[in-house]
Amino acid sequence: MGVVTIGEGALPTEAQLAAYARLVVEVGVAVRPGQRLLIDGISGGAALECAPFIRHVAAAAYDAGGSDVVVVYDDQALRRLGFERMADRSLPEPASWWAGYPNEHAQAGDAMLTVDGSDPRLLHGVAATRVAARTAARGARLRVSQDLVMRDAFNWSYACAPTPAWASRVFPDDEPEGATARLWHAVLHACRVNAADPVAAWRSHLAQLTDRAAQLTARRFVALRAEGPGTAIEIGLADGHVWGGGGAVAADGLPFAPNLPTEEVFTAPHRLRVHGRLRGTAPVEIRGEIVEGWTLVFRDGLIVEATATDGQESLERLLATDDGARRLGEVALVAGASPTRETGVCFQNALFEENVACHVAVGAAYPTTIADGRDRSRSELERSGANDSLVHLDLMWGSPEVDVFGVRADGSEDPLLVAGEWAT
Amino acid sequence: MGVVTIGEGALPTEAQLAAYARLVVEVGVAVRPGQRLLIDGISGGAALECAPFIRHVAAAAYDAGGSDVVVVYDDQALRRLGFERMADRSLPEPASWWAGYPNEHAQAGDAMLTVDGSDPRLLHGVAATRVAARTAARGARLRVSQDLVMRDAFNWSYACAPTPAWASRVFPDDEPEGATARLWHAVLHACRVNAADPVAAWRSHLAQLTDRAAQLTARRFVALRAEGPGTAIEIGLADGHVWGGGGAVAADGLPFAPNLPTEEVFTAPHRLRVHGRLRGTAPVEIRGEIVEGWTLVFRDGLIVEATATDGQESLERLLATDDGARRLGEVALVAGASPTRETGVCFQNALFEENVACHVAVGAAYPTTIADGRDRSRSELERSGANDSLVHLDLMWGSPEVDVFGVRADGSEDPLLVAGEWAT
Repeated sequence: MGVVTIGEGALPTEAQLAAYARLVVEVGVAVRPGQRLLIDGISGGAALECAPFIRHVAAAAYDAGGSDVVVVYDDQALRRLGFERMADRSLPEPASWWAGYPNEHAQAGDAMLTVDGSDPRLLHGVAATRVAARTAARGARLRVSQDLVMRDAFNWSYACAPTPAWASRVFPDDEPEGATARLWHAVLHACRVNAADPVAAWRSHLAQLTDRAAQLTARRFVALRAEGPGTAIEIGLADGHVWGGGGAVAADGLPFAPNLPTEEVFTAPHRLRVHGRLRGTAPVEIRGEIVEGWTLVFRDGLIVEATATDGQESLERLLATDDGARRLGEVALVAGASPTRETGVCFQNALFEENVACHVAVGAAYPTTIADGRDRSRSELERSGANDSLVHLDLMWGSPEVDVFGVRADGSEDPLLVAGEWAT
Repeated sequence: MGVVTIGEGALPTEAQLAAYARLVVEVGVAVRPGQRLLIDGISGGAALECAPFIRHVAAAAYDAGGSDVVVVYDDQALRRLGFERMADRSLPEPASWWAGYPNEHAQAGDAMLTVDGSDPRLLHGVAATRVAARTAARGARLRVSQDLVMRDAFNWSYACAPTPAWASRVFPDDEPEGATARLWHAVLHACRVNAADPVAAWRSHLAQLTDRAAQLTARRFVALRAEGPGTAIEIGLADGHVWGGGGAVAADGLPFAPNLPTEEVFTAPHRLRVHGRLRGTAPVEIRGEIVEGWTLVFRDGLIVEATATDGQESLERLLATDDGARRLGEVALVAGASPTRETGVCFQNALFEENVACHVAVGAAYPTTIADGRDRSRSELERSGANDSLVHLDLMWGSPEVDVFGVRADGSEDPLLVAGEWAT
């Protein structure tokens, strides 16, 4: 594609918001006729300022035949105030309904959408122990819905809607409204909303990613090896692993796209077979703090050393959530040009960052990245090497300077990514 | 008091919002140290636009020692969209957590606050059957918390925060921001926030109302009689009735003020002993519709005829909720000058309307308006004549043209209100 001019001018028009909403509803969460939709702001950061976009999403969901749209907003200012001032004993004891409401929707097979507009540094300076206490309590309660989400038991998706607070972190030298306009235009470009027919553009793009994933699965690599500045690692892959990408298929047999945008193919590492050192190439938001300059050292799959130039305590708290938080649940490859990359924007949001760079996730593996994994228990999956945890957090390590190789059972290697492009 | 100039100028300052929030927290809901606070927007209409005030309330609640503040916002545009577009079968089947979350807080003895900024005509033109289907389903589910609220089992309160949508109904000729500024100034005046020490002003005012209520209880009237244009009614009072007013005392023995402002004294009518005709003197909002020009005709306590010049279907739907919705649960007397009356504003919101005019409520009686009622079962209360229902809706019939008399067991009468002022 040609040179893209991002972010001159005004906030998106109602027509642009409506087109983006339609894309999110039809291709992303893919609401089925007669299905209820939950937009879960507590889990996902649907700030009050996302309301104009969320209203378009709700209208699009009813257009698609959705039966009921339930929206829970998150007041970001109150979230921060709560973490600052809530009683210590209340942190690990949230109201039961508040901690658990997504479970009801997950068990009913409702569609679930995250609309994220959160300030990536919302909780900057708040004690990480306080944030961890509440987050862990809610995470434990949401194990039911998290497991169903990760199995694609129903259609779900994650999309973003810029807010002034988020945009001002990305473009700190701009006035909030100007920053918001710039970030909106970057998001709409990354999501191909400016294409003549965004829905058709996505269907075609998703088909290409699905094809790439199928080819990788067929090659039956036992490991990936990555090498670059500060990075020298072998990431063993789980037995019977399957590559995913280009959207997913829910238990009802119908497609949906868990992320918009998506540019990755991904699979399950083996939880015991990761060795070496990985250096981050992008900042990562962990529970309202930005972690920068991280390096992880692995031995037999376990993170034995984790350092960061900024936000190290937030990283350590996350890794301390449970045993699985110190092991990998996903490895993803991202290559070549994409609208997301064209924006040149550092979004400070995993949805975009993970689509411009190869990454791993610490924490739980997707059952669908193991053959017939959707119906296998977590202990069966673990025997294949697929990791389990309450957390799943993407950490970006890819760059044009990091090459990636596929390793076969006999030790031979094929180049996969060279200078940031697919080798084959 | 002197002439009051309402609503010139700007939106309230942060200092004014903070003072109002402190009043609501310390005198209204009176958050106890260590207590959790629920601000329930689904039941009460905490529009997204109320957020700036709600954040002050949350800060004041933590200042008062509150342990956790849980806020559920209501997106008014989505509420209307849902009623317009939701599937018919979904209307009476809301998500279980959504319908029931206040019950958990009520059973835990949390403080509960309504912050209402809703558009009084939000649902204008939506089929009343659709609104009734969902409202009845949620009401049935919330019977637990409603009963605990009406018994003052814990401290709760209801306050308002103007929004552009509400203000534009009240001042339709003004620009939204100007209308919002005017309505805010009226609300702050009605709530005595401009007093030198609003908390002290309220404590003194509440004590006067409590005194008035005690005097009325001591007089042991068996009925009230009201007479004026279109109104000729005798409202029998429940056996062992007690007059309330000037705030309440929760089961923990500590005071709170269920409404700010409050200018009323009130008690329980006898559910079987109301005879005659009552003509409304103010419009009333019923489920997002304004009902105007209503007249009710009673026989043996039952409403046998209900007419309205506008919104009659909404009124009829409400009265059809259950058997108790066609009988009275409250009669309240309001007299004399008050800051609310001084504003001269028709707020189109019951919290203010009920404090400028005598009113009745159709539906449930407050157990605390029967001697020792807090601990009596609903069937015991009913034997005293106290009504029960899923609903409780205030209907204003007072004016300077309607005089009110207290009727003794021997048939003799004392004038109570003459030309809108207390006779004694």
